[in-house]
Amino acid sequence: MFLTRWQETLHHDGSARYVTPGSHPIGSTVTVRLRTGRATPLEQVYLRSAPDGEEDATPMQREPGDGPACWWRAELRLTTPRTDYRFYLVTAEGTWWYSAAGLTRHNVTDATDFKLLAGAQTPGWVRDSIFYQIFPDTFCDGDPSNNVRSGEWLCYGRPVVARGWDDLPLGRGQGHGVEFFGGDLAGIAQRLDYLQNLGVTALYLNPIFTSPSNHRYDIADFTAVDPHLGGDEALIALRQALDARGMRLVLDITPNHCSMIHPWFVAAQADPAAPTAEYFIFDEHPARYVSWMGVRSLPKLNYRSAALREVMYAGQDAILRRWLRPPFRIDGWRLDVANMMGRFGSTLLTHKIGRGIRRAVKEENPDAYLLGEHYFDGTPYLQGDELDASMNYQGFAFPLLAWLSGFDLTGAPFGGWTRRPPLPTEALAAQWRAYLAALPWDIALQQFNLLGTHDTPRVTTLLDGDEARLRVAATLLMTFPGVPSIYYGDEIGLSGGGDPDNRRPMIWDEARWNTARRTLFQRLIALRRGSPALREGGFQVLHAAGDTIAFLREAADERLIVVARRADDGLRAVPVGAAALPDGARLRELLDGGEATVTGDLLPLAGLDGAGAQVWRVVE
Amino acid sequence: MFLTRWQETLHHDGSARYVTPGSHPIGSTVTVRLRTGRATPLEQVYLRSAPDGEEDATPMQREPGDGPACWWRAELRLTTPRTDYRFYLVTAEGTWWYSAAGLTRHNVTDATDFKLLAGAQTPGWVRDSIFYQIFPDTFCDGDPSNNVRSGEWLCYGRPVVARGWDDLPLGRGQGHGVEFFGGDLAGIAQRLDYLQNLGVTALYLNPIFTSPSNHRYDIADFTAVDPHLGGDEALIALRQALDARGMRLVLDITPNHCSMIHPWFVAAQADPAAPTAEYFIFDEHPARYVSWMGVRSLPKLNYRSAALREVMYAGQDAILRRWLRPPFRIDGWRLDVANMMGRFGSTLLTHKIGRGIRRAVKEENPDAYLLGEHYFDGTPYLQGDELDASMNYQGFAFPLLAWLSGFDLTGAPFGGWTRRPPLPTEALAAQWRAYLAALPWDIALQQFNLLGTHDTPRVTTLLDGDEARLRVAATLLMTFPGVPSIYYGDEIGLSGGGDPDNRRPMIWDEARWNTARRTLFQRLIALRRGSPALREGGFQVLHAAGDTIAFLREAADERLIVVARRADDGLRAVPVGAAALPDGARLRELLDGGEATVTGDLLPLAGLDGAGAQVWRVVE
Repeated sequence: MFLTRWQETLHHDGSARYVTPGSHPIGSTVTVRLRTGRATPLEQVYLRSAPDGEEDATPMQREPGDGPACWWRAELRLTTPRTDYRFYLVTAEGTWWYSAAGLTRHNVTDATDFKLLAGAQTPGWVRDSIFYQIFPDTFCDGDPSNNVRSGEWLCYGRPVVARGWDDLPLGRGQGHGVEFFGGDLAGIAQRLDYLQNLGVTALYLNPIFTSPSNHRYDIADFTAVDPHLGGDEALIALRQALDARGMRLVLDITPNHCSMIHPWFVAAQADPAAPTAEYFIFDEHPARYVSWMGVRSLPKLNYRSAALREVMYAGQDAILRRWLRPPFRIDGWRLDVANMMGRFGSTLLTHKIGRGIRRAVKEENPDAYLLGEHYFDGTPYLQGDELDASMNYQGFAFPLLAWLSGFDLTGAPFGGWTRRPPLPTEALAAQWRAYLAALPWDIALQQFNLLGTHDTPRVTTLLDGDEARLRVAATLLMTFPGVPSIYYGDEIGLSGGGDPDNRRPMIWDEARWNTARRTLFQRLIALRRGSPALREGGFQVLHAAGDTIAFLREAADERLIVVARRADDGLRAVPVGAAALPDGARLRELLDGGEATVTGDLLPLAGLDGAGAQVWRVVE
Repeated sequence: MFLTRWQETLHHDGSARYVTPGSHPIGSTVTVRLRTGRATPLEQVYLRSAPDGEEDATPMQREPGDGPACWWRAELRLTTPRTDYRFYLVTAEGTWWYSAAGLTRHNVTDATDFKLLAGAQTPGWVRDSIFYQIFPDTFCDGDPSNNVRSGEWLCYGRPVVARGWDDLPLGRGQGHGVEFFGGDLAGIAQRLDYLQNLGVTALYLNPIFTSPSNHRYDIADFTAVDPHLGGDEALIALRQALDARGMRLVLDITPNHCSMIHPWFVAAQADPAAPTAEYFIFDEHPARYVSWMGVRSLPKLNYRSAALREVMYAGQDAILRRWLRPPFRIDGWRLDVANMMGRFGSTLLTHKIGRGIRRAVKEENPDAYLLGEHYFDGTPYLQGDELDASMNYQGFAFPLLAWLSGFDLTGAPFGGWTRRPPLPTEALAAQWRAYLAALPWDIALQQFNLLGTHDTPRVTTLLDGDEARLRVAATLLMTFPGVPSIYYGDEIGLSGGGDPDNRRPMIWDEARWNTARRTLFQRLIALRRGSPALREGGFQVLHAAGDTIAFLREAADERLIVVARRADDGLRAVPVGAAALPDGARLRELLDGGEATVTGDLLPLAGLDGAGAQVWRVVE
């Protein structure tokens, strides 16, 4: 669709220029604003919502002023936990609907309405955070005395193996899961200077509870930190060390399943009348039971059991509660395979369990961060009453990596990870917008953005070590709405393919670091931490074509334009007219310096002759 | 987006050529097929679903054959009440996603997946029906002895008035609600010959329960037919008369509210400790209470009350159950303001109540039709576990009428019903598709399509009596996916503006009929009843531009192309290449006769020089 000026400058999102900022209780009233360009054919604008299910429309008032933008405003009363709204625009040429999906001549379903939360317990610290994800076994060996010894036990029949720090993971079918490198919580505590120097403010650790494998997603005891990581005492010590630095800690847990050696399952398998037998789903006791992806070592937990719900989250001393309490006081949970939890065949308890977990977690600490693993579309679970955020694979990382590298990481089912023609830039913008459109704004700002995890090939490897495109990826990670998370080692150039190669030991020999990469991360992190627009500003795509994408992030007092390109597509100045800047607006680039003036709605792209990224601040 | 040949011929929906037809229990397997043109760059196609929340992909097999279409197929196991799926297409140029929202290069959210119901109790008779909506007071006076006498009672302080059959409604603020024309159930029974002659097979009656007003949406007794309509005996007689003709009967009820003179409310207002006091929401007893749209005569029912849920639907002798039983045996319910039911402020019980009502109704009669009034977006309530259908204003009628007349009937909130520039044809197609995309196919086929009701200006009036455009509207009503409903009198040219002018007495003087209109309806109804493609065929838009829209309806053994235009836009042959017909395919027009041959993917539009509609059957 070819857009006219008033259409391309039309914008709304949940950020401070558009919605009264802050946390709003149910019953309160907020001001909602819509922006378009000065020359507008809009005769009337209505704010449309549906309190009590019935359509309501508030005529919006045009604000006086003669700047390049024209603003319309109305008051909106929030009567429900989530208020959905869109806009109805009247021109002499016809009427339009404007929703989070964009501008259409026809009326749309409510699914793409803008969504505003009221009375939600959203952890305010998250949006100011820089997360760092650590795979505990391979980050740092702080206490060799607790290291696993080769042959110390059998992990589902295979002897565990102690590996050297400079070894590489043996790969699937060989050492997978049974090789241990010696990393532990003491090691993490010892590296907090390093992390703080990088700019990190919060840690997300892969599972640390007692488990027979090195990834510890097969938990054998949800109530104890693995002794090979230092046990509960090491976690308390880490907590104290983090407190001293004002840093946060999020742990990983698997409410969907446990290890087949977990006492619950051992008892259940031994006796169909055992109290924990109902925690599992036996097709035929004791041999046939439902497990995660058919992996027999990971029996799936059965949330039809009220007793399981009690012990996992609902009861006063439930597992998900106890770690939020002193002396551990973790700041949140990452729920493994949240997409599968409480779900099997025609049993669809995921939302019920999700709401129950939220209630329990927020009762313990309203400020706790509840992050779920959703490798696919998590948006139905991100509406304010379940998860605070999901691992943002689909809404951020996967389209970005497909655009940069041609790898479609959606999943192995489609013939495995294969390099394909890269995603068009228009499609990158479309996928980002579609996933943002499904979220309340408060949730969008706390989505867990990433370039890779323990489940994906490392970004360095995906991008073939191309530092220019790496800079594009890192810049977008730090400038996209949501909170950035760095997978340990990406900042110094650690490479690796699919699991377990992506879990190589961290490199602590600085001579082997990619120091330019680290400096880049430091600068991007500092930039983000100092920028209200990057932490909570609005998001508007200004240009997405060829190999170049540009978007606006705008806070109450700061406007940034981020420009990223994967290759030189010949564009020498990027159209930024959609931002409704004043003619002759001056901008300063924040990474490399440099100044530019917007002329004829075009921002010159000096210094971006190939792949690269720039962050421009509007200075006047 | 400019579509290449393989993209425009790409199609899937839930109809018999694409999904194994019939009712599928949970656990069964269906064949899913995808169609594209013969010349296709598709290297691989995957059927993507997410059983247990985890992505699964089945490679589709290309069927042998050398016709103009190329088919891919895969088996899909249905493990949940609703199975969502989409397609992943691999070409050398890149990968694509195909969902109910269309074809995209980027991955989409699950919201637009194709949706397939399993184990759903969907009333099979509905899709074969032709509904006729009757406003009982103004359809036919079969028994003058039960007519209301002027001054017989006060309706909320205003005396009721008996009006003559040839009078016009007095309009808002004058006679609204208190004027009675004398129509009754005996009158309806007397006119069954007329209705059957038209082709009608099912009746939907506006409320008939005892009420002080003529529209009877203010019910004073949910357990008795209004004596002025003939009482329970007249309903039994009507039921028997309908049975003799194999006709169906759907009644209208207001679970959202009742009359302020209902004994429940009288008792509740008299005594805050009355058993029925909890059925209502008093802000300040007895004077301030929540009511429908603030209308004090219509106190809103409070579904937080378990006792109310019992009496309304859950209990064994609940109101919504008793009328489904002998001797009344109605065939379904139309739930008034289903969008508001169980919903007030932060109380959001609508889905819970919806599921409860469905359970109760289907327990009484699995074949009962559960239709809800949703003037706005009802799709969240149409997912198989609540309503069977909604009044299809947004998904059919409103965009159609805005396209034909320029009237946007979305609602009074936007400055009232005003004529605006008509909706572009592309937008008509887009809105139709967007609302269809949100529905399981079984639901789409039983959506309640209409051109008007007691709540909208009559189509004759909206179209200024333009018979050519009326033919367009009527043809689309009878050929769009879903079940058509005719608002009484539209078939003979009855006119009328907004409520109550749209409720004028039916004209029984044949000399005053628009007989050409009636003949048109008869022929369209006969066409639809004889056509599997119109009753349950797939739906694919072939062309939507200028003033012309064309779509394909295809069943296992019948393919129809419907062409409708609101004006002559100069197009002399409509592109139908998207249907993947054989070159030189011959078609026969079913309304006016005539034959045509598709040449170069173009269907000649002979006989459609201005507004009009044609229905072509592919004959070879």
